[in-house]
Amino acid sequence: MQRPSGRQPDELRETTITRHYTRHAEGSVLISCGGTRVLCNASVEDRVPPFLRGSGEGWVTAEYGMLPRSTGSRMAREAARGKQGGRTLEIQRLIGRSLRAVVDRSALGERTITVDCDVIQADGGTRTASITGAYVALRDACGWLLKHGRIKSDPIHGQVAAVSVGIYDTHPVLDLDYDEDSAAETDMNVVMNDGRAFIEVQGTAEGHAFRRDELDVLLDLADGGIQRLMSLQREALGG
Amino acid sequence: MQRPSGRQPDELRETTITRHYTRHAEGSVLISCGGTRVLCNASVEDRVPPFLRGSGEGWVTAEYGMLPRSTGSRMAREAARGKQGGRTLEIQRLIGRSLRAVVDRSALGERTITVDCDVIQADGGTRTASITGAYVALRDACGWLLKHGRIKSDPIHGQVAAVSVGIYDTHPVLDLDYDEDSAAETDMNVVMNDGRAFIEVQGTAEGHAFRRDELDVLLDLADGGIQRLMSLQREALGG
Amino acid sequence: MQRPSGRQPDELRETTITRHYTRHAEGSVLISCGGTRVLCNASVEDRVPPFLRGSGEGWVTAEYGMLPRSTGSRMAREAARGKQGGRTLEIQRLIGRSLRAVVDRSALGERTITVDCDVIQADGGTRTASITGAYVALRDACGWLLKHGRIKSDPIHGQVAAVSVGIYDTHPVLDLDYDEDSAAETDMNVVMNDGRAFIEVQGTAEGHAFRRDELDVLLDLADGGIQRLMSLQREALGG
Amino acid sequence: MQRPSGRQPDELRETTITRHYTRHAEGSVLISCGGTRVLCNASVEDRVPPFLRGSGEGWVTAEYGMLPRSTGSRMAREAARGKQGGRTLEIQRLIGRSLRAVVDRSALGERTITVDCDVIQADGGTRTASITGAYVALRDACGWLLKHGRIKSDPIHGQVAAVSVGIYDTHPVLDLDYDEDSAAETDMNVVMNDGRAFIEVQGTAEGHAFRRDELDVLLDLADGGIQRLMSLQREALGG
Amino acid sequence: MQRPSGRQPDELRETTITRHYTRHAEGSVLISCGGTRVLCNASVEDRVPPFLRGSGEGWVTAEYGMLPRSTGSRMAREAARGKQGGRTLEIQRLIGRSLRAVVDRSALGERTITVDCDVIQADGGTRTASITGAYVALRDACGWLLKHGRIKSDPIHGQVAAVSVGIYDTHPVLDLDYDEDSAAETDMNVVMNDGRAFIEVQGTAEGHAFRRDELDVLLDLADGGIQRLMSLQREALGG
Amino acid sequence: MQRPSGRQPDELRETTITRHYTRHAEGSVLISCGGTRVLCNASVEDRVPPFLRGSGEGWVTAEYGMLPRSTGSRMAREAARGKQGGRTLEIQRLIGRSLRAVVDRSALGERTITVDCDVIQADGGTRTASITGAYVALRDACGWLLKHGRIKSDPIHGQVAAVSVGIYDTHPVLDLDYDEDSAAETDMNVVMNDGRAFIEVQGTAEGHAFRRDELDVLLDLADGGIQRLMSLQREALGG
Repeated sequence: MQRPSGRQPDELRETTITRHYTRHAEGSVLISCGGTRVLCNASVEDRVPPFLRGSGEGWVTAEYGMLPRSTGSRMAREAARGKQGGRTLEIQRLIGRSLRAVVDRSALGERTITVDCDVIQADGGTRTASITGAYVALRDACGWLLKHGRIKSDPIHGQVAAVSVGIYDTHPVLDLDYDEDSAAETDMNVVMNDGRAFIEVQGTAEGHAFRRDELDVLLDLADGGIQRLMSLQREALGG
Repeated sequence: MQRPSGRQPDELRETTITRHYTRHAEGSVLISCGGTRVLCNASVEDRVPPFLRGSGEGWVTAEYGMLPRSTGSRMAREAARGKQGGRTLEIQRLIGRSLRAVVDRSALGERTITVDCDVIQADGGTRTASITGAYVALRDACGWLLKHGRIKSDPIHGQVAAVSVGIYDTHPVLDLDYDEDSAAETDMNVVMNDGRAFIEVQGTAEGHAFRRDELDVLLDLADGGIQRLMSLQREALGG
Repeated sequence: MQRPSGRQPDELRETTITRHYTRHAEGSVLISCGGTRVLCNASVEDRVPPFLRGSGEGWVTAEYGMLPRSTGSRMAREAARGKQGGRTLEIQRLIGRSLRAVVDRSALGERTITVDCDVIQADGGTRTASITGAYVALRDACGWLLKHGRIKSDPIHGQVAAVSVGIYDTHPVLDLDYDEDSAAETDMNVVMNDGRAFIEVQGTAEGHAFRRDELDVLLDLADGGIQRLMSLQREALGG
Repeated sequence: MQRPSGRQPDELRETTITRHYTRHAEGSVLISCGGTRVLCNASVEDRVPPFLRGSGEGWVTAEYGMLPRSTGSRMAREAARGKQGGRTLEIQRLIGRSLRAVVDRSALGERTITVDCDVIQADGGTRTASITGAYVALRDACGWLLKHGRIKSDPIHGQVAAVSVGIYDTHPVLDLDYDEDSAAETDMNVVMNDGRAFIEVQGTAEGHAFRRDELDVLLDLADGGIQRLMSLQREALGG
Repeated sequence: MQRPSGRQPDELRETTITRHYTRHAEGSVLISCGGTRVLCNASVEDRVPPFLRGSGEGWVTAEYGMLPRSTGSRMAREAARGKQGGRTLEIQRLIGRSLRAVVDRSALGERTITVDCDVIQADGGTRTASITGAYVALRDACGWLLKHGRIKSDPIHGQVAAVSVGIYDTHPVLDLDYDEDSAAETDMNVVMNDGRAFIEVQGTAEGHAFRRDELDVLLDLADGGIQRLMSLQREALGG
Repeated sequence: MQRPSGRQPDELRETTITRHYTRHAEGSVLISCGGTRVLCNASVEDRVPPFLRGSGEGWVTAEYGMLPRSTGSRMAREAARGKQGGRTLEIQRLIGRSLRAVVDRSALGERTITVDCDVIQADGGTRTASITGAYVALRDACGWLLKHGRIKSDPIHGQVAAVSVGIYDTHPVLDLDYDEDSAAETDMNVVMNDGRAFIEVQGTAEGHAFRRDELDVLLDLADGGIQRLMSLQREALGG
């Protein structure tokens, strides 16, 4: 089997994480995974959703969007169509859950951190890149809160990153790009923490269903890839 | 560990599948899984979405809704709010993908089967009950097409059912009801076919992330539960 | 003249009223009028619309919906279309007004009872069946409030039921089913209280306009039918 | 009993009908009933709704709106709120049905006449004034079609007008203005044709339900009022 | 060059301003500029937008709409389409800014004046006619506030009026009607105050771009026209 | 007078134009004007709006959006709010008109070029930066059409660029940044072509109205600034 990109089955795409990418956000990260580029801006606001008012707890959430021409053919702008599609809502709910899994919301106090993940250019794996980048932006926003004395202790108690795996041309491979993704028979997005435990596992059989032994290999590949992504996150964060 | 319902960890709730529940739909199934009751109506229409026009292929899709007082406290009606929420869109996309995984859309011809899954009463596991019930409704709709000479060969090439599993009070359990679900640390929805292969695996860690060995037990539990649900489906279908 | 169903001109369809149909609602009634089946769930909430805040008065309102395949051919789901149609709004306003006509809103206190009328299967007369069923659900919700000591006196001061009448094949008939309704030249929905007075009269000439003498016969038919429906309501309520 | 306006119980408000009120519409009528002023513009378009395409039949429909400050306190603009309310939809459906009751849609051919009824100033009875005015505008639009040779025979086979009646301070009265309407215990809108038959009867008991004998008096009042309105329509139309 | 209307290049259309046109609004003005007729209703409300609450300042805003058949062919009703178009939003923002330029919002206190500009009949220049008419309605609403003792000093510190100018058939002309506007190569809307200073200048080259010398002539024409419109405003206001 | 940035009154911010910024669009340009960064992606599609079908003419249009945290405090995402605001619609209509002023739509044939202008970071002047950048992206998209033989002759017959001018602290200045813009008394956006003629002039007096002599100076400043921006466009385009 030959991957379109010539990569090994367990090889990540070249991934870079750039902090302080824009000027206004409390955390601003551009993550590039091969041809996929996502801008992750974390914003701190001193308000919480109604169900948390008076609780002393904060909230962490995410929004996701694709620029209309981030893709091969132009997609209609969701703002112009008047609603966010099902895929968008599904992805931003996933990103939000993944981030909340490593945050102590009591330590955050009654404020909200919203991480906007906007896809500048898409080449497969935009949702997992969003999670990996959003973690770094969230880290910076919490650093900002600590530095400005708004909170006393760090609300982040773990590290989170994500990657896709799938079966391409009958072989399990790591970190699918668009060419592989659109041809893949099975696609799985895996979100893990730095304790090597799973936060989310979302596997979908596009073509044929996957056997248990295939699932096992895919999870191994994801585990390895996420270890390396976490190293890159730590490097970017300067430690 | 004691489950609130007194069930064994690997014990399904009492599940019944009633066909021909309403009069107009080509397939109409009421599925009850404990206190969860979902009406699954399959409708045949002689048209396909734009992207399939002229292709000779058909389409299978699903819509999902909860009656406003199917739940403990009344939820706002989505039709009155003017849009379907993210959870609704996510669930109906999942049901549609699960059904399409066992359908040969060429054999269906250029027509659409829409399965409406409406929750009459909710007690956890509405999305997996929807899939298990929708399969039977889809079966009946295809039987109707065959009987009326609209299609020559059966477009369904597999059987599909779904169940939830999760970690409740540190123990893996099968088929969570609402009391367990709202307290669960980890929740996973599993969709499988009759070849014991996975069509969808969606695991979410609400509280703590789950280890690989926990994941393995959960998948075993799901596998066993789905075998039994498939027996119930076959019984309901008369063989 | 022969009615399609073989009924006498002044004969109601077989009508059954089942209380406690679902588990969560404070009042939950399934009403069947021939092939028409409507689930009426009454929900109590401790809030009122803005225009009543601080007034000491409560509110009674209704929402109406049809399951997409409650009808002969599938209707688009209103939640998916993003708005409720004119017919839906018109019907739910009618149900709400009819119920409020027998309620002392001061005795209710600052709370809202919403009755959701969801059509499971349609065969004509869904709006009048909704009113007749909703009254029983409302009764049960008020019983619940009394039993739990939330209110001191019964806010319901009258009984309400409704039926359709129309001119089919030149003859006035009671309680039209779908076959009659779609062929009827004139259609009238009548809502009355137990004092034999009118709460709503809505007559529409689809084909030819109706003369005053025809109107008189139709109102007589409605009066008789509603007397019998009120007996069925009282029976269901155990008195 | 003394009516706020000093009118007799069976006395209409001063009513004037002005044709050719604006320049562009094929029929343009301003109707004033006391303080109520409605502009009724009939527009001819060479297209029909999808369900009539290829049928050879035409369509007649209506839209209704109130200028934001046609009323005592400013109402939010429906275009700004992003949807038409239930009352608006209910009224425009009523106007449309009333007009279609006197039109032979085959003689109209495959074209649509839309009558826009926009309330410039409201003082009760806007929906019945709309119907009475819309009939004249429709007449003019059909005259335009005949004069320009677009149709051969007149599609209008009857005359239609409408008025409100109600019980004010225990007495039945004709043509309620806003002061009476907001205090009325019962309100009924009646639409009749020139054969003295009923096209629509919509009675609503706001306060107490109305007895059969009250209903009879109200219908008599309406009948008399509508006769006079039809005279005014004929006068305005120059015959 | 001959203008379609036979007017001189610097000649306004016949313009009339009628106050107290409807009964409910605190200021109600019908302005006619040739065939263009706009009803401008100013409403006073004792509330301000959220960003001004507690500031002691008031707000002045405008809404704009066209009746569906104010134009040569019927336009879809914005309330029915479910949103206001870009042109509508642009125009109502312009009217609001123009009015606020002559208002001392502190003197107004925490209340809002909304001027609804509804086009009854359109023949070009509806946005400038709206501004010229809205000023008079705003004047009357402020007079009402003074007369009823709600405010102590007049919040209006200047006069505002507007006109369109453009290049028609290569010649600069004042106050374009629809025939000229649809053929014009360049169109400019100019809003000025009584100090002969500019509040808004909005020039758009439909056909060819306009040279600086053309711009200078257009601004001179606008200046002259606005002087005369301000005389008409003062006359209407009885001074 | 000292500008916050220390610039001379007639000094542009540092402006860079980067072509081929993303991979998929037929023209992709990042324009930076000081702290303002806008991504302009031009997409070619083989279809035209309904009003142009069969006309042989093409269409050029624009859409505009701001990333939620492109600004100092986070703005709600328009896709999540369900509609584009008035400011957004106004800006994208302006960009579209400006581009169409230099395009021969017959030479384009029946295809549409949509330029998406998405603001990555905002520091004043985003609409004028969008126009200046969009022109270069449009140029590249037309180059792509020529190179691929889709069109025979270049549809672009002129060059277009835009800049803002305003009165800051009583002095006319060129190219306002956010600090100046929010304090400016008068703000004007000017769009010109390479014949030094005006395509759009939009001046708004926020604080005091501007006199004719001030207007003259502002237009001179804009003219000079646009000459320099056009040099930068030509440089970027390699000539």
